[in-house]
Amino acid sequence: MNIITYDTYFCVKSNELNNRNAVVIDTLRATSTIITALSNGCREVVPVEEVESARAMSKEMYTNQYLLGGERGGVLIDGFNLANSPFEYTKEVVSGKTIIMSTTNGTRALKKAAAAHKTIVCGLINATAVADYLIKDNLDVAIICAGTEGKYTIEDSLTAGMLTSVISKRVETSIDDMSYVSEVLYDKYKDDLYKAMDKCVHANFLKSIGFDEDIKYCLSPDRYDIVPFYEKGVIKI
Amino acid sequence: MNIITYDTYFCVKSNELNNRNAVVIDTLRATSTIITALSNGCREVVPVEEVESARAMSKEMYTNQYLLGGERGGVLIDGFNLANSPFEYTKEVVSGKTIIMSTTNGTRALKKAAAAHKTIVCGLINATAVADYLIKDNLDVAIICAGTEGKYTIEDSLTAGMLTSVISKRVETSIDDMSYVSEVLYDKYKDDLYKAMDKCVHANFLKSIGFDEDIKYCLSPDRYDIVPFYEKGVIKI
Repeated sequence: MNIITYDTYFCVKSNELNNRNAVVIDTLRATSTIITALSNGCREVVPVEEVESARAMSKEMYTNQYLLGGERGGVLIDGFNLANSPFEYTKEVVSGKTIIMSTTNGTRALKKAAAAHKTIVCGLINATAVADYLIKDNLDVAIICAGTEGKYTIEDSLTAGMLTSVISKRVETSIDDMSYVSEVLYDKYKDDLYKAMDKCVHANFLKSIGFDEDIKYCLSPDRYDIVPFYEKGVIKI
Repeated sequence: MNIITYDTYFCVKSNELNNRNAVVIDTLRATSTIITALSNGCREVVPVEEVESARAMSKEMYTNQYLLGGERGGVLIDGFNLANSPFEYTKEVVSGKTIIMSTTNGTRALKKAAAAHKTIVCGLINATAVADYLIKDNLDVAIICAGTEGKYTIEDSLTAGMLTSVISKRVETSIDDMSYVSEVLYDKYKDDLYKAMDKCVHANFLKSIGFDEDIKYCLSPDRYDIVPFYEKGVIKI
């Protein structure tokens, strides 16, 4: 199995995704929050780039069917129901609902990945479940990290590294340079992933605005065993 | 001193280079070859993207003034004097000459870097000399790796990591995530940089077409203590 990793979605070329499964990662916090919401029984997540598009979409639905989620600058969007903390997306809140979620990097990464065979939503919290699926499906893999504004991030690389490491222990793989360095990083920190956050610019920003517990949550591998798929603009399990 | 690293030049935003020194890295082999040529007394290197532009430029000069260098697919360009192996750029061959050099990634990376305060050409073979200059100049730093077709490469990351490591040992730094992971990679392999090439896609390609000695040469730190600058389209020391 061949594995390539993009540290941001900016440089993804659609033709490189032919006959591959794509895995989209935004560890802090979009994909971790989406996985949590789906585990807690939300019906589906509709990722939308622009806040206004999310509002327009919600107007087509009954009030009790949907929730508006997402963040700008790490905090709640005016008039939205939920921000981007996984702790907000409890069973009580999300069960049976459609969540219209406005994210910038995450949505763009998903759209770039849409040319792949299947597009899977992944965080550390479901990494082994995703690895199991990929091994079973036995296609080549493209891991697409959201990154931050076109730049590599440690938190996404740790997830890519764990995925590569779990797969490479179980089947024969050839991997590219970014997959390899992600594995090196994951190996260095696998016994204490939170420690890697000392050096992580985005994690330090989230800590500074009070989201340290979110970081610890998002860095706990294998809380869930679900594999969410993005298809026709909607994420479901 | 703040250090940011771009693993490819694709995502460089000119405004992020304001008041920074930029360091351009293409370890295998463009910047290593340029450093070698300048150390061996070539007058200047003019990096040009297109082969035809290089030919056109050469027609404006006397035959004994210039050499045409560069490669496509790792090998000599039809009608050129030199390919991209540092071993071709000896004192006897290059002394006093202008080298018009056609590279794709390297030239584009240099052009992207031109908005910086100074733009410096770096490889492992002159990394400590570059670090010395950056420390003395005491501006923030943007390390711009050429990468390969928009993707991260281990060989450029090793150079970025060595640079970050040498600087961070001597002055206080804040660094971004890519600078950090490059340092992690460099630390893992610093006693045997060539070993990191086992996992490096581009190095394995170069080995397969017979350039193993070039790789060993380009991975030997601090062969030279020169600091080449790119200014107004020309690289000089």
